[in-house]
Amino acid sequence: MNQPEGRFLAEIHEQPAALESLLGHLDEIQAAGQACAERAPSVLRLVGHGSSDAAATYGVYAFGLVAGWTALRDSVSLSVYYGAEVDFSNSVVVALSQSGRTPDVVSYVEHARKRGAFTIGVTNDADSELARAAELTLLLHAGEERAVAASKTLANTFAVLALLAGCAAGRGDEVAAAVHGVAEQMRNALPALEDAVAPIATRFAYVGRMYVIGRGIEFGTAREIALKLTETCRVAAEPLTATDLSHGPIAALDAMFPVWTIASRDESLPALVEAAAKVRAAGATIVASGNAADAIEGAAWRLPVPAAPMAVLSPLVSVVPGQLFAGALAGAKGLDPDRPEGLTKVTLAQ
Amino acid sequence: MNQPEGRFLAEIHEQPAALESLLGHLDEIQAAGQACAERAPSVLRLVGHGSSDAAATYGVYAFGLVAGWTALRDSVSLSVYYGAEVDFSNSVVVALSQSGRTPDVVSYVEHARKRGAFTIGVTNDADSELARAAELTLLLHAGEERAVAASKTLANTFAVLALLAGCAAGRGDEVAAAVHGVAEQMRNALPALEDAVAPIATRFAYVGRMYVIGRGIEFGTAREIALKLTETCRVAAEPLTATDLSHGPIAALDAMFPVWTIASRDESLPALVEAAAKVRAAGATIVASGNAADAIEGAAWRLPVPAAPMAVLSPLVSVVPGQLFAGALAGAKGLDPDRPEGLTKVTLAQ
Repeated sequence: MNQPEGRFLAEIHEQPAALESLLGHLDEIQAAGQACAERAPSVLRLVGHGSSDAAATYGVYAFGLVAGWTALRDSVSLSVYYGAEVDFSNSVVVALSQSGRTPDVVSYVEHARKRGAFTIGVTNDADSELARAAELTLLLHAGEERAVAASKTLANTFAVLALLAGCAAGRGDEVAAAVHGVAEQMRNALPALEDAVAPIATRFAYVGRMYVIGRGIEFGTAREIALKLTETCRVAAEPLTATDLSHGPIAALDAMFPVWTIASRDESLPALVEAAAKVRAAGATIVASGNAADAIEGAAWRLPVPAAPMAVLSPLVSVVPGQLFAGALAGAKGLDPDRPEGLTKVTLAQ
Repeated sequence: MNQPEGRFLAEIHEQPAALESLLGHLDEIQAAGQACAERAPSVLRLVGHGSSDAAATYGVYAFGLVAGWTALRDSVSLSVYYGAEVDFSNSVVVALSQSGRTPDVVSYVEHARKRGAFTIGVTNDADSELARAAELTLLLHAGEERAVAASKTLANTFAVLALLAGCAAGRGDEVAAAVHGVAEQMRNALPALEDAVAPIATRFAYVGRMYVIGRGIEFGTAREIALKLTETCRVAAEPLTATDLSHGPIAALDAMFPVWTIASRDESLPALVEAAAKVRAAGATIVASGNAADAIEGAAWRLPVPAAPMAVLSPLVSVVPGQLFAGALAGAKGLDPDRPEGLTKVTLAQ
């Protein structure tokens, strides 16, 4: 696995082990969750860029569903660049950066901490600036990630957020057992999914634009899959909620504009099914993924995954077909998913 | 102006008058702003779909900058579909729907109001379900909007949010004077901007995908312009912050993938300039708009606008070239911007 072209794929396959490694440090997350709960914050502020921002979207649902907390993806620029006089005193900040070196995320944490927020840095690097800036650090324990396109650090960030919400709500052991189950499901599902994405990738070799549709807990997944397709395959892939689609983008669809749907069997499913029907009526090709892939009528391709032991963990399983497909499509397009053009592993841009 | 093909353009030109009509009802917004301030909410929750969601993005910055409040675009699905046990007791809800008939926005307001939130509906229809569901209604006073693609109701929604933030912070008169100035600037700038977008539209007739880049207060503008291009021109136009671009999408750019930048002369400008330099290095064509359009080096086209009397109102001016360009590009593509395929004025989808 030393060939550069194999890193992304290898790291996708390392995800079950990475999750288990994280579970070996559950005590760290338990302590952080208790510290959060003691503060009884009025809001929990999530920040991150790229895949970490997709994880922040997931975090809004994880904290809302598991702990009943109001979590938000906070604006970094509002505080760091504009210097808005926002009250941080009753806030918990959870800052996400696998490298721990994203400059304005570090600045945000310093700013929030000075103003009284309880700050938690979530990173894969214990020696990073983020780890130094935050009051408390939660390590991803994912092992070194070398592909520019994140996979196992994303999965472990999702898991940290679900576990932290669980621990804050006194449900840490329940969530941990479910994450363990997810790791098993992932390990079992990976080989067949890898086979299943290959013919779709061949067929999609000349696709230039796609929509990725998810709703509720799967919207973060949609954001992450769209980002993988964009960075590794140079596809203009835009993530949309089922509702976003109906409020405009549906007008842009045609037979040359495929749509990836992520359907999980939960309260958001009817909206997804309705959106997919509109996509089909517009003549677009549908790839149906998620544990309710079978509910999407008229899909040209289906990539079903197992139902996670807790519904809130579905995104950890749902993201895998998207990761594998991005790797396969990059190959079909003759691109190197480990070193996408114009990108580096650590983004130092503002 | 009875021809269907002229409505969208006519309503873009009606925006200065629509803003002035709104200012004639400043007392209503003053009362609402005082009612908000008395509650001293821990969070202000914004909800809306489509253009109203772009306005919600703007609202996060308007409330943060003008009032120092934490505002967030809340998840409708978390409460309405998943039934998450979120605490609404110390919240103000501002629900945005020009028609007042967006089903799940109305459901959200009913849900939040029952749980103790102070709810404000912002709508163009006094007889709508939203007006009945919310504790207090703020009318847009934009006059009837008949084109499917929103323009003047969007401008007035931006203005209501800035005015409400101003009134909540005891700065209502200052913001109102500035909105009045913006209406004047818009009226003066519209004819030249309409001329300026025409040759770009001709050139872009076969464009299938675009990015629209804004940051901070202009990210809502980017979302709205991208939505206009998607719904009226069938372009896959994705809104990105300057930071989003660097974390992945930059890899997808090439000479066939134009980028619209919105640069305002404020604290976010360096990030925009840096992002535009990367776009240029990737060989993509740049359209530079905003009041700092001149700061974007190497732009193929420039659509500068006047600097608004208050920086936080810049988006009201910045959105206009995007609206006009969408109308012109629809014409160049042979599409009817008043009746985009698959869309209706009131979206009843979940």
